[in-house]
Order: sequence, then C-alpha cells, then structure tokens
Amino acid sequence: MAEADAPDASGFTRKMPDKMNVTPAKPDNSMVYKMNYKQKSICLILCMEKFDNDPKGKRSRNSNDDKIFLNNIFVKMGFEVRLEENKTADEIESLLNDIARQDHSERGCFVCVVISHGDKDFFYARDQEFKIDALAEPFHGENCKSLIGKPKLFFIQACRGDKTDSGVVKDAGIATTTASVIPTECDFLFAYATPPGYFAWRRGAGSWFIQSLCEMLGEYWQKRDLLQILTRVNHKVAYEYISNSTDTDKNEKKEMTCFLSMLTKELYFFHKADQD
Amino acid sequence: MAEADAPDASGFTRKMPDKMNVTPAKPDNSMVYKMNYKQKSICLILCMEKFDNDPKGKRSRNSNDDKIFLNNIFVKMGFEVRLEENKTADEIESLLNDIARQDHSERGCFVCVVISHGDKDFFYARDQEFKIDALAEPFHGENCKSLIGKPKLFFIQACRGDKTDSGVVKDAGIATTTASVIPTECDFLFAYATPPGYFAWRRGAGSWFIQSLCEMLGEYWQKRDLLQILTRVNHKVAYEYISNSTDTDKNEKKEMTCFLSMLTKELYFFHKADQD
Repeated sequence: MAEADAPDASGFTRKMPDKMNVTPAKPDNSMVYKMNYKQKSICLILCMEKFDNDPKGKRSRNSNDDKIFLNNIFVKMGFEVRLEENKTADEIESLLNDIARQDHSERGCFVCVVISHGDKDFFYARDQEFKIDALAEPFHGENCKSLIGKPKLFFIQACRGDKTDSGVVKDAGIATTTASVIPTECDFLFAYATPPGYFAWRRGAGSWFIQSLCEMLGEYWQKRDLLQILTRVNHKVAYEYISNSTDTDKNEKKEMTCFLSMLTKELYFFHKADQD
Repeated sequence: MAEADAPDASGFTRKMPDKMNVTPAKPDNSMVYKMNYKQKSICLILCMEKFDNDPKGKRSRNSNDDKIFLNNIFVKMGFEVRLEENKTADEIESLLNDIARQDHSERGCFVCVVISHGDKDFFYARDQEFKIDALAEPFHGENCKSLIGKPKLFFIQACRGDKTDSGVVKDAGIATTTASVIPTECDFLFAYATPPGYFAWRRGAGSWFIQSLCEMLGEYWQKRDLLQILTRVNHKVAYEYISNSTDTDKNEKKEMTCFLSMLTKELYFFHKADQD
C-alpha cells in the first residue's frame, strides 16, 4: 500500500482529496444542463399490458390513457417518442442496448418510462421479471459515452399487480425498489409512483402518477426545472388522491410518489441560459 | 367486500379515486412552504466522534470542521441549533422523542443532521447501531402533529467506518440505506453523503458532503430552493472530488451524493411568496 493510501491520524481518511486526481471530466461550469442539441432526445416508453401465464396471477391491464398522455407531452417537449409494448425481457434488453449503442452526441438527455405491474426491485416484462437496475445499466458511464454528463431519467409506474389491499408495509420503503438501481454515477434520476408494498392507484386506463406527471409537465415544462415539476407531482398525488387522514382505514388508500436524484445541474426541458 | 372495492374490468383498480375521500388535509394551495413562523425551527446535529469498544473496530473520528460549519450556516439561516455529541442509542431516542413532543406550531420545519460511522440502514450511536428509520419515526404524522405538512429534513453523513478500500459494490445502492427510512408520508427529505458500500471521503476534520452542503447553503440559501441547492452539492462532490475517469482504479475514489424527496412544495430557507 502506498504511503498516500494510509489512514491518517483520525484513522479514517485514506487519501486527502486535494492529492487526488481531480475533475478532468468536468464539462463546463454551467448549473443548467444544456438542452439545445441538434437531434431530438429519445423517450422510450415500455408499456406492459399483456402478460404470459404466470403463477403469480398477473392480470392484463389497460394503460391507454397513460400511453396517450405520455406520447403527447413528450412529443410536445421535442422528444422522439418510442413506444414499445408487451415485450419480453430479452426484447427489452435488446432495445435498451440498441439505444445505448446509438450516438447521442447531438441529443440532450435520455428518458425511459416503464408502465407495468411490479414489485420491489423489478417490473414484469411480458414473460418474466426485469430488474430495474438492468434498465439503467446500459446507460452507465463507459457503456454509453455519448450520454456522459447528460441527464438519464427513469420514471417507474409499476404497481403490485396482485395485491389490491396493500395496507401498510411498515419499515419497507423505496429502499428495496431502488436497491440495485443506483449507478455510482451522477446525472441519473429515478422517479417512482410509490414505494414498494404500496398499491399504485389507477383510474380507468391511467395511473395517478403518470397522469399527474403528464399534467404537471404540460403545465410547467416551459417554466420550471424538473425537480420543481416532480415536487408538484408529489403534491398532486399526495393531496388530490390521498385519503382522509381521519379515515380509520387511512393507510389503505395512500399513494406517495418520490424521486431519487443524482442530477448535478438544473434540468429544464427547454433551452435556458444559466441564471447566475 | 363492498361493491366499490371490487376490481374493475381491468382486474386492477380497487376503487375509483374520484369516489375516495379526497384531500381534507390540504392546508393551502401554495407551492412554496411557508417559512415565516414566529419561532426558530430546530436543527438537531447528532455527531458521533467517540465510540465504545466494538468488535467491528470503529475508530474515533474528528468532525470539528463539520460541526463548526453546520452550526454557523444553520444559525445564519435562523435555526435554533442543538448539537448533541457521542450519545448512546437510548439517549438519541429520548432526544428525538423530546423534540417530536414539543409544540412546533410556530416553527416552519425540522432538520436533523447525522455525522457518524455507519452502514446500510443504520449509523453508529456511541454504544450501538441506530436504525435510520428510527430517526424519522418520531416525526411521522400523528406522532408529531405540529409538523404535519411541514418539511422534515434528514442529512446523513455516515461513512463505512471500517472499510477504506470501498471499491465498487455493484448492485448495491441507496436502496438499503433508505430501506426502512421511508415514512409513507409526504414532506420528508433524505440527503445522503453516499450510497452504502461506498466510502464517504473526508478531508481532515470535515467530510466532503457536509462541507459542500454548508458551502452551497451559504452561497444559495437566500436565492434558491433546497433541491436546487442539493443539486449543487451533487455537482460539487461529483466534479470537485471524483477521481479521474481514466484512472485504472477509478471506482475507489468516487463519491456521489444523492437525495430522496417526498417534499410537496418548494422549500426556501427564507420567506418567499408563491411565484405563480
């Protein structure tokens, strides 16, 4: 072990940061992601409505409204929307790898929306489970160099398909959902309809999370940064749909969206100069 | 089972949202948390530098810089700062319960900062492990009514005390850290120095995360909302400290901060009227 690697007097610091290789990757000093690229960014929508037979009893679902609203808003925001439905796990893996291998040099970001049944750290592809970390992996650093330093956004609407009376799963949390999700890397964001153990509510052919997301994007994408928009989604789902707190069965009907951010700049879906 | 509870044709929706008890808890339509309360909000700093003997070999640490910087900035922002050092798990539990039982009606929010060694879903109190979910529990809904609808913020600097060569723990993530952390409730935010499995770097008597947090708060608390400030912390830690990506041992020296938000409004640490 080199001397520089030795713990210091506190027994804790292995190397002093100022002796480390520092920040050659820093692209610029802007605090706003550049979004005025020549090509449209891709928004991949993975929508699973039909499932092969499964002992866990997943039922087909209707996500028509979600698909329509997502397509409309992302097209409006200048994305190239690619809707892929009822794919098998292998097909999804190929799709993701194909997109990750493309040249995104002239694209500003990448968006992936998943609509399916799911549980904890996976969602259901048509034929089998698909780990959420496997969604992000192809876009991780060296795997997709042309997206390095650019936002990679994942919106996950995956309710527990076979558990309508979700009740409270106390001491469970987003934890397990994001368990293997986290790339040790910046510029990823994961937004979830609900922590696992909770039922993600739907109304007819749409889900609370996706419907709220689309509505808030529609209203604010030209004014606000993404985290402010997602905060409004949190607000909308919490206050417009959460059941009365005096309800004795109150925990049964709750939904709380949340997001985990490793973004390093403000993200506006339009070209915006730095504010300071 | 009542008819309204029955699954619909898609076999999935238990109740239509519009038939549910909707939003009596909604306090107002503002998209900005009210912060002009009469009393100072509490910022509790739990700092562990000394530990009782432990087979896992936790070593004492020096967090002087972190303590000083935290105190300075939170006092500046108008908080009542309470520093508690080297407490046992029982003492911490009492402290939290005492604070949660107080009347926060005239306070705008609650902040808790933890500085210690830690691992996955716990940090070390002086004598034993303390689950991160146990930090939040006393401030959860009915347990602390006077903070309902107000932001409850937790900043966790807890590095793996006995693992300096953290390397990559692939497929590990914030997941386990937040595992039991998530109250099924809005208005909580958790900001982490690093996903578990990764070493949280320190420089002398301060940590990258806390030092960056204090610096960014100092620079932006009168201009920006909390999520924008935390995004700048992500940026600072990622780009000022992350090692060269061409380094063959690159993963060894990375640190990526992240935050999980269930906030439902924008949070400014000063009085700010709604923008729209």
